[in-house]
Amino acid sequence: MTGLKMKMDELAEKIIKGEKLALARGITIIENNRKGKEELVAKLYPEAGRAHRIGIAGPPGVGKSTTTFRIASAFSKTDKCVGIVAVDPTSPFTGGALLGDRIRMNELFNDPGVFIRSMATRGSMGGLAVAATEAGDVLDASGKDVVIFETVGIGQSELDIAKACDTVVLILAPESGDGVQAMKAGFMEIADIFAVNKSDREGADKAVLEIQNVLSLHGDVDWTIPVLQTTATTNSGIDDLIAKIGEHYDFLKETGLLDRRRQDQFTDRVKSVVKKLISSAFWTDEREVKLEELVRSNPEKLRSPYRIAHKLTESFLQK
Amino acid sequence: MTGLKMKMDELAEKIIKGEKLALARGITIIENNRKGKEELVAKLYPEAGRAHRIGIAGPPGVGKSTTTFRIASAFSKTDKCVGIVAVDPTSPFTGGALLGDRIRMNELFNDPGVFIRSMATRGSMGGLAVAATEAGDVLDASGKDVVIFETVGIGQSELDIAKACDTVVLILAPESGDGVQAMKAGFMEIADIFAVNKSDREGADKAVLEIQNVLSLHGDVDWTIPVLQTTATTNSGIDDLIAKIGEHYDFLKETGLLDRRRQDQFTDRVKSVVKKLISSAFWTDEREVKLEELVRSNPEKLRSPYRIAHKLTESFLQK
Repeated sequence: MTGLKMKMDELAEKIIKGEKLALARGITIIENNRKGKEELVAKLYPEAGRAHRIGIAGPPGVGKSTTTFRIASAFSKTDKCVGIVAVDPTSPFTGGALLGDRIRMNELFNDPGVFIRSMATRGSMGGLAVAATEAGDVLDASGKDVVIFETVGIGQSELDIAKACDTVVLILAPESGDGVQAMKAGFMEIADIFAVNKSDREGADKAVLEIQNVLSLHGDVDWTIPVLQTTATTNSGIDDLIAKIGEHYDFLKETGLLDRRRQDQFTDRVKSVVKKLISSAFWTDEREVKLEELVRSNPEKLRSPYRIAHKLTESFLQK
Repeated sequence: MTGLKMKMDELAEKIIKGEKLALARGITIIENNRKGKEELVAKLYPEAGRAHRIGIAGPPGVGKSTTTFRIASAFSKTDKCVGIVAVDPTSPFTGGALLGDRIRMNELFNDPGVFIRSMATRGSMGGLAVAATEAGDVLDASGKDVVIFETVGIGQSELDIAKACDTVVLILAPESGDGVQAMKAGFMEIADIFAVNKSDREGADKAVLEIQNVLSLHGDVDWTIPVLQTTATTNSGIDDLIAKIGEHYDFLKETGLLDRRRQDQFTDRVKSVVKKLISSAFWTDEREVKLEELVRSNPEKLRSPYRIAHKLTESFLQK
């Protein structure tokens, strides 16, 4: 057994026991693609799969953080261990805006039943969904009953994260034209529960009706997608939301959908690892230089990107 | 010469002549990955590269469509041929909300100097950036002086599209917390011009100052990134915006940055084609079945996604 493997085995054991420091270290290794990552994942993977993975999605500004906070607090009060993966980047602009959120979140940071991990989007777009999902595995393996993924916006990364969850809650605001965007971005199709947050504002009933109208067109599922009203700041409607989240999990388990979903997710993950493996095998220094030469020696652009790509891959694919 | 190649050669010639119907057909072939696509791109590519590619980015609701409309009209009035690639999906929700925009856009549709192509995000996420960029190539090859890419939000696809542009205009609204999101999503780093739109609203001056503050931290570029105020609905500030867009293009040409940028973009595009080629070479039916078997026969999850991926790729990468 190599030293690295031994170290990872030790770390994995501590994570499985639920040690917070080990948890944090494990997620860092995964997030930064450090050495030992694959060994760690291999060790933890058999332990994962017991947590209920909940995705909190929606456009910016609709109250995802506050809702996540409320849900996590409520779960923690019923003695459930909660892990949160917050894809919540810090930015020079955010200081003021998010201060309130931060103070509120501090309550959770001090709750021994809750483990929070922030992940930056910066620089890691693309790999972000994989990193977040794998951080969820670590939390799952450490014995969390619930893992909540709070995402930032409604882009592709966020959609990928949501697809790796068991239950997806899509949060919208009454007046939110962003709701339209969420629909467009493919969140409509994967949301299991809708929550119109800030429902103390005008237009909440109308927003609910509109969503229900669109949902009525999707008649082919056994799960009736609920459209709830919440006001996360005052905790209003959160109990209903949590009840529905629980119902949806029961539904998944009873119908066998949970196993099927997770098998599909596992397949997707193997595929994304495969993509990485063959890509790094292909992009040797030699081929990088070759590409550079081809691009540089091609000032008249007589060849298209396709021609150059075919030329580059010829020998690799023929072998 | 095969029939397909001949057909594509004919189509390419019509596109290069600027025939609208051929243009539309060409973009459809590219967008839907139809047969003949590679031949068409190869034929058009040498003709592209003369248009100024402008990306209009920003969070939803800040007025990107209206700004695009204003810019396109202004260019058209100075006898420039304009192509617009609008990543503007239609959705059951949009009917009402976008009606005003649609009516306004109709003016442009009737302008013979302007060609507009909408692209749906639905179902084509991921491949969207490639499709949009290639649609831009077609417009470029057809002799447009300016190609404007109007994107929907601030996700990864939109960032990829912006990166394929010469000049990126980031539009924000004064009160927009979304600005924060734009920064986070990596748009800060690639924006060449900022426009605070809806600047008739309160907070516009403050927003400009905030952006300038953050920009002042990036001291390593020769181009001083302007932060303008616009009110696209009333056409206010649009002249300045267009002047700055022109200045930036001149700057790129004079400094040689344009060539360098386009070479980098070309390299990125070759890489994305390579990715596709090796991925489709790898995922034979046989391997898809093998993966399915491995996932199914792995109920105890004794192996991690990494282990299965290594097993799958072993023979492919050793050959």
